[in-house]
Amino acid sequence: MTYPFVKGHGTENDFVIVPADVDLTPERARALCDRRAGIGGDGVIRAARDEDGRWFMDYRNSDGSLSEMCGNGIRVFARYLREEEGATFPLEIATRSGIKTLTESGNGFTVDMGAPRVLGETKVAVGDRTWPATHIDVGNPHAVAFVDDLADAGRLLDPPQHDEALYPEGVNVEFVVRRGERHVAMRVHERGSGETRSCGTGACAVMVASALADGATRPAAYRVDVPGGTLTIEWTEDDRVLMTGPAVIVARGTTDL
Amino acid sequence: MTYPFVKGHGTENDFVIVPADVDLTPERARALCDRRAGIGGDGVIRAARDEDGRWFMDYRNSDGSLSEMCGNGIRVFARYLREEEGATFPLEIATRSGIKTLTESGNGFTVDMGAPRVLGETKVAVGDRTWPATHIDVGNPHAVAFVDDLADAGRLLDPPQHDEALYPEGVNVEFVVRRGERHVAMRVHERGSGETRSCGTGACAVMVASALADGATRPAAYRVDVPGGTLTIEWTEDDRVLMTGPAVIVARGTTDL
Repeated sequence: MTYPFVKGHGTENDFVIVPADVDLTPERARALCDRRAGIGGDGVIRAARDEDGRWFMDYRNSDGSLSEMCGNGIRVFARYLREEEGATFPLEIATRSGIKTLTESGNGFTVDMGAPRVLGETKVAVGDRTWPATHIDVGNPHAVAFVDDLADAGRLLDPPQHDEALYPEGVNVEFVVRRGERHVAMRVHERGSGETRSCGTGACAVMVASALADGATRPAAYRVDVPGGTLTIEWTEDDRVLMTGPAVIVARGTTDL
Repeated sequence: MTYPFVKGHGTENDFVIVPADVDLTPERARALCDRRAGIGGDGVIRAARDEDGRWFMDYRNSDGSLSEMCGNGIRVFARYLREEEGATFPLEIATRSGIKTLTESGNGFTVDMGAPRVLGETKVAVGDRTWPATHIDVGNPHAVAFVDDLADAGRLLDPPQHDEALYPEGVNVEFVVRRGERHVAMRVHERGSGETRSCGTGACAVMVASALADGATRPAAYRVDVPGGTLTIEWTEDDRVLMTGPAVIVARGTTDL
């Protein structure tokens, strides 16, 4: 079977997007995401529809597993829907973690990520270094640690040590430095993926931890630099997190993977 | 500018192939090979012609630098020429290291890599472990070390230590174990690329070192397992190395990178 695909990225978190009629098995997701024997991507999005006719983001990680939501992926999916399907904005997109509203913003899109849950203090460690961290849930669990230098976390080849009782299914760990007023930079180790170029929910967690540390009044907006680019995160007065960032399509084609 | 591309691989050494009229600058090669912001590949091949009308493999590495020859790349290029350009075999393909003859073989192609040069003994080391190694040149320099277990070389995040006077421009280091009669398996650290899934010239060097260690009579053929698949290497009576392996196209499309 030969079918069409699009490849794109948001802050270098990259995705292969396929049409609704492709049978997106775990095996096919792995084959498409394989960076050498396939096309390559952090995940695959199937452009499906929900029962109400909304676009539905059927997302699988590069290991074939299902994922509820991906903040960078949904922007790239929005770009695909705009350019390939003529979708107009604001647009409601259904995901496994509910309906998200997307709006156009400059060269990218803004996605309403909902309310963050700030769940207290914890610790993370790499080698013999330990940092206090804030436990924040943005649909998935995060531990945000402020460091003196992003290099302090080392090569991040293994998951940082964390409280196994608090995070029985693992945790995404963010290391953050301040760059200026309402401007931070981060690295992230994602559970199951290792260090990545960007993590949308991680950037949201980092913004929330930074705003709390700064005693910022809501609404507050922060620039969050990730290795693959820059995201702007706003925490609204009514406790929603709005993530704005780029979404780029780099290739269109066909494959028989 | 929007232009066509093909992506393919040989034993998981992967390449983006573009037509002759694409201006393949170092910047464009890097953009195409970028695994997250681009299409992704170990290198780019421009399907050019030499002054005699032969197909010419205009090859650039993922860092944008020119390369003379790539044993896996030329098979993928042969696949492209057969499927996209109707080329017939045997086929002479011009490269920066001379004209190579390609023949079809099963699901893949055989490329005549010419005569190897066996240049004596040296040493390589990883951490506090040192192994004797054979210095072999197959158009580019190699150090082939037999090990007890492929895991002995560790994570290979850094270039193995080697004789800097012997290899002033760096060296590709192969670690080899025996798997059976005329059957070996290898890992490779390529200068400038790190550990890769396959290295065609490395597999040739490994075969030659193995045949010499075994006192094999030419013609001799070895199966060489690389992390990304299997190559068959024959050393002919008249001192040519013939490499046979798969070549697969996984995607065709357009890009404006």
